[in-house]
Amino acid sequence: MSLLDLAKNRKSTRAFKKRPLPSPESILKSIEVALEAPSGLNCQPWFFLIVTKKELKKKIREYCENEEKSFHSIAPDYFKIWLKKKKISWKKPFLTDAPYLILVFSDMKCPYAIQSTWLSIGYLLLALEEKNIASLTYTPPNPAKLRNLLGINKRYSLQTIIPVGYPKKIKIKEKRKSIKEKVFLNAWKNPFILQNNKLQ
Amino acid sequence: MSLLDLAKNRKSTRAFKKRPLPSPESILKSIEVALEAPSGLNCQPWFFLIVTKKELKKKIREYCENEEKSFHSIAPDYFKIWLKKKKISWKKPFLTDAPYLILVFSDMKCPYAIQSTWLSIGYLLLALEEKNIASLTYTPPNPAKLRNLLGINKRYSLQTIIPVGYPKKIKIKEKRKSIKEKVFLNAWKNPFILQNNKLQ
Repeated sequence: MSLLDLAKNRKSTRAFKKRPLPSPESILKSIEVALEAPSGLNCQPWFFLIVTKKELKKKIREYCENEEKSFHSIAPDYFKIWLKKKKISWKKPFLTDAPYLILVFSDMKCPYAIQSTWLSIGYLLLALEEKNIASLTYTPPNPAKLRNLLGINKRYSLQTIIPVGYPKKIKIKEKRKSIKEKVFLNAWKNPFILQNNKLQ
Repeated sequence: MSLLDLAKNRKSTRAFKKRPLPSPESILKSIEVALEAPSGLNCQPWFFLIVTKKELKKKIREYCENEEKSFHSIAPDYFKIWLKKKKISWKKPFLTDAPYLILVFSDMKCPYAIQSTWLSIGYLLLALEEKNIASLTYTPPNPAKLRNLLGINKRYSLQTIIPVGYPKKIKIKEKRKSIKEKVFLNAWKNPFILQNNKLQ
């Protein structure tokens, strides 16, 4: 399958089947792809903590739902509207339903730590999709507090939680803007024209 | 080709042939992959400015080399050592040699703008590699000053410059750390064991 097809097929999934589980090998193979990403000074700032333990997933979910409740009450209006439209509440069942959570950390001593880590997350999401594994990048409010709760040194910043597994139902992918809105040629807002295999 | 092979093949390239040029269609098709990435609130914060004009590439190179000269003089020692080891000087010939520069911007009004944009850059690099096109993520010192020079509103933050084209010579990929150093199970630094298709 071409990368364009893979990328087009991949959707953020918020509801996971508890079973069947993707094979652990497929999860590790996907992370292996992420480990090949480039990074500032080749520092490889990323760390992946796979969570499979029921108790630990429950603890993470409790923390996140508490934070979400506070956040939802003070969120800016445009955010509240978006959440309502998408039927996203403070409840995060995917944090216990998904068979695996992959917590991604970034070593803040590395140059361009956050940028490099998210680049590798791009690799990871596509690699999961290649194996028909659904995923979501979910970042709780106050990730630093969760990192502390997990007893992890503040040098390692929690970037996101990626629940992975099989989706409960097939979703329609959210619309993307057209290439003409997002790609310019030689000057800001200057549209490109492709003619006779030339850009002008 | 599997994504793992693609990711393993992909190397950061710092020396480009002036000719032949990758087809403009292959560049656009690669960016199309990046446009499919997920983003906070599906805000799609990314913008891609393709630079092909000789004069503009020259201007960008001049700016970057000037900034690099100042930066190299004040860089921390570990950085200087790394640069020397990699034979990286303040000179950036790839900024004029590469047939295309893709400047990537992030709309700072979007939530998780930087994270989402770098995730999409992960998509882009793999998509370029799929078409055998070499790339580099090069971020100049003071990218905000370059953005101003290009007359672009400060709402759009310049994240990186990606020169793309064909490499002058085949490079060996920089070593990556092993999966055991980067992946833990259920607790920080707790190594995973894969046995009988089970993680423990």
